[in-house]
Amino acid sequence: MTSCPLPLTTKDRILLGHGSGGKLSAELLRDVFLRVFHSPVLGRLDDQAVLEIGGERVAFTTDSFVVKPLFFRGGDIGSLAVHGTINDLAMGGAEPLYLSAGFILEEGLSTEVLARVADSMALAAEAAGVEIVTGDTKVVEKGKGDGLFINTTGIGRIPAHVNLSAMNVRPGDCVLLSGFIGDHGIAILSERESIGFETTVTSDSAPLHALVRDMLRAAAGIRMMRDPTRGGVASTTNEIAEKARVGIELVETAIPVREDVRAACELLGFDALHVANEGKLIAIVAPEDADAVLAAMRAHPLGANAAMVGSITDRHPGMVTLKTPFGTSRIVEMLAGDQLPRIC
Amino acid sequence: MTSCPLPLTTKDRILLGHGSGGKLSAELLRDVFLRVFHSPVLGRLDDQAVLEIGGERVAFTTDSFVVKPLFFRGGDIGSLAVHGTINDLAMGGAEPLYLSAGFILEEGLSTEVLARVADSMALAAEAAGVEIVTGDTKVVEKGKGDGLFINTTGIGRIPAHVNLSAMNVRPGDCVLLSGFIGDHGIAILSERESIGFETTVTSDSAPLHALVRDMLRAAAGIRMMRDPTRGGVASTTNEIAEKARVGIELVETAIPVREDVRAACELLGFDALHVANEGKLIAIVAPEDADAVLAAMRAHPLGANAAMVGSITDRHPGMVTLKTPFGTSRIVEMLAGDQLPRIC
Repeated sequence: MTSCPLPLTTKDRILLGHGSGGKLSAELLRDVFLRVFHSPVLGRLDDQAVLEIGGERVAFTTDSFVVKPLFFRGGDIGSLAVHGTINDLAMGGAEPLYLSAGFILEEGLSTEVLARVADSMALAAEAAGVEIVTGDTKVVEKGKGDGLFINTTGIGRIPAHVNLSAMNVRPGDCVLLSGFIGDHGIAILSERESIGFETTVTSDSAPLHALVRDMLRAAAGIRMMRDPTRGGVASTTNEIAEKARVGIELVETAIPVREDVRAACELLGFDALHVANEGKLIAIVAPEDADAVLAAMRAHPLGANAAMVGSITDRHPGMVTLKTPFGTSRIVEMLAGDQLPRIC
Repeated sequence: MTSCPLPLTTKDRILLGHGSGGKLSAELLRDVFLRVFHSPVLGRLDDQAVLEIGGERVAFTTDSFVVKPLFFRGGDIGSLAVHGTINDLAMGGAEPLYLSAGFILEEGLSTEVLARVADSMALAAEAAGVEIVTGDTKVVEKGKGDGLFINTTGIGRIPAHVNLSAMNVRPGDCVLLSGFIGDHGIAILSERESIGFETTVTSDSAPLHALVRDMLRAAAGIRMMRDPTRGGVASTTNEIAEKARVGIELVETAIPVREDVRAACELLGFDALHVANEGKLIAIVAPEDADAVLAAMRAHPLGANAAMVGSITDRHPGMVTLKTPFGTSRIVEMLAGDQLPRIC
């Protein structure tokens, strides 16, 4: 007697949503990777690993970039690959020092396009004061890649006094956001040929380490930081709430959203809280230090529009809520599925 | 008057050969990447960058893996990704410590396949005593990738007394090779569906750091090491000759090649010197220490078939020659084009 073969469920296959930074990404991480990789460092699930080398605390982080199109208003895959990894280091309070660059090229890619991307990476690295010190290039057959993918992996040094972690978060802490949300996602979306709307929104892709340095100098009470990239502010705050076992209460009117981005989100049926950012950070800060940190943020060009957008509560641990302008509250969910593949 | 637009030359487009590890790879590195990336560390063109962190010398290296098929006799993309980066660290004399893992998945990939690869990576890392501490996953649409690509980037510690560099190489030094060549390339080739030959050759994919440790303990006279992966022994020895500005004279009868590999190469018109290895190393050693290092290699399972295969000369700097069994000499060229794409 043979048993009836059940049809494959979607869980048996990788979906675009597994790369969204939302619920499916978290499931894949838990079910496939954490099941076999038992490193306690990896298990902390921070944006960066913290290693002890020669008495120094060293941050180590990796990110692959598959953004489409390769060039967009405000950046390209090269500058994004540099900024993205710098930011993952910076979120741990590390000073970014060195990057590696791994290229996967599709046969037939224009060498001129590759050279433009390499130029852009070199400029972005130089502007940020980091050094690209090692690299690798592979080529796959035409139709087995998509022009150009880049992995950047970074090393940074964590100053002795810096200790950022979800474990530090306490009820009563303030939630700070460094500026307008959704710019990167809407800029990418508007560049996709199949999307019929025009906008002048420009990606916010930028290296955040200098802003972070200024914030850390302003006050000792910064508990943790995260950059709300894939999955947006909604997914990142949910991750924070879950890791810190606290509730987060956001205030909708306090969250900076450009009119253009708001209009695009309405047109497309998106929630701006789910749209990706590449030059913004969320900081959880002790209440007595919130004003000082906010002032330091506003004094830096990349934090000029920073705002206090919410607070940490001991109610509903693991959950994020949003107070609407009408005085009601709604639950803010992680991004489910993938509204916008290949945003980074 | 408009000028006649010239047709694009092949140099205007990325070819599979740009990923071969041979001549075209070297041109791409020089013309596109070194033109804009001005790091003195990168400029040394070693398999790994050497950084100073907290008074320690830290090796840092990156490699993307696009091998096809994903599973082959003797390994899979997961174990290969762990071994490959461990070996790049080991070639600088570093003790491998930490790896990052970046995955680019194609929509529709079987989750079971991904889980098998992750298992294999975890086992390979554990067996080698290295820790996978951070990771990243991206997903691209069906038809924009090829199942699964993996980047691994590694960090290792270089012991204080170790200083391996092409700058140390002197005429009169000996060239040691750790075992049979061409196994990985022929194993991969035989797995490709379109290739109609059968063989039982198994990939030599293996982590070489323990062998290296034993060699470094045996004698102080090891000048440098390289693992002859893409482009094979021919390309690697040419790189050494060029960097060290010396000639290399290899002796054909001294180079260990399995009968199966020799037969496959004859059938396919390949030169075994161009075929990839993933668990072999070439060491350049001071003549007075060559016997001691060779003995240490042979005492380790991964060096059991090690041999002295040539010597360094001050004649014809930058060139590699091979003494044939007939007493004649021929020039050994770097791999030109790409005989076997996606070998790693």
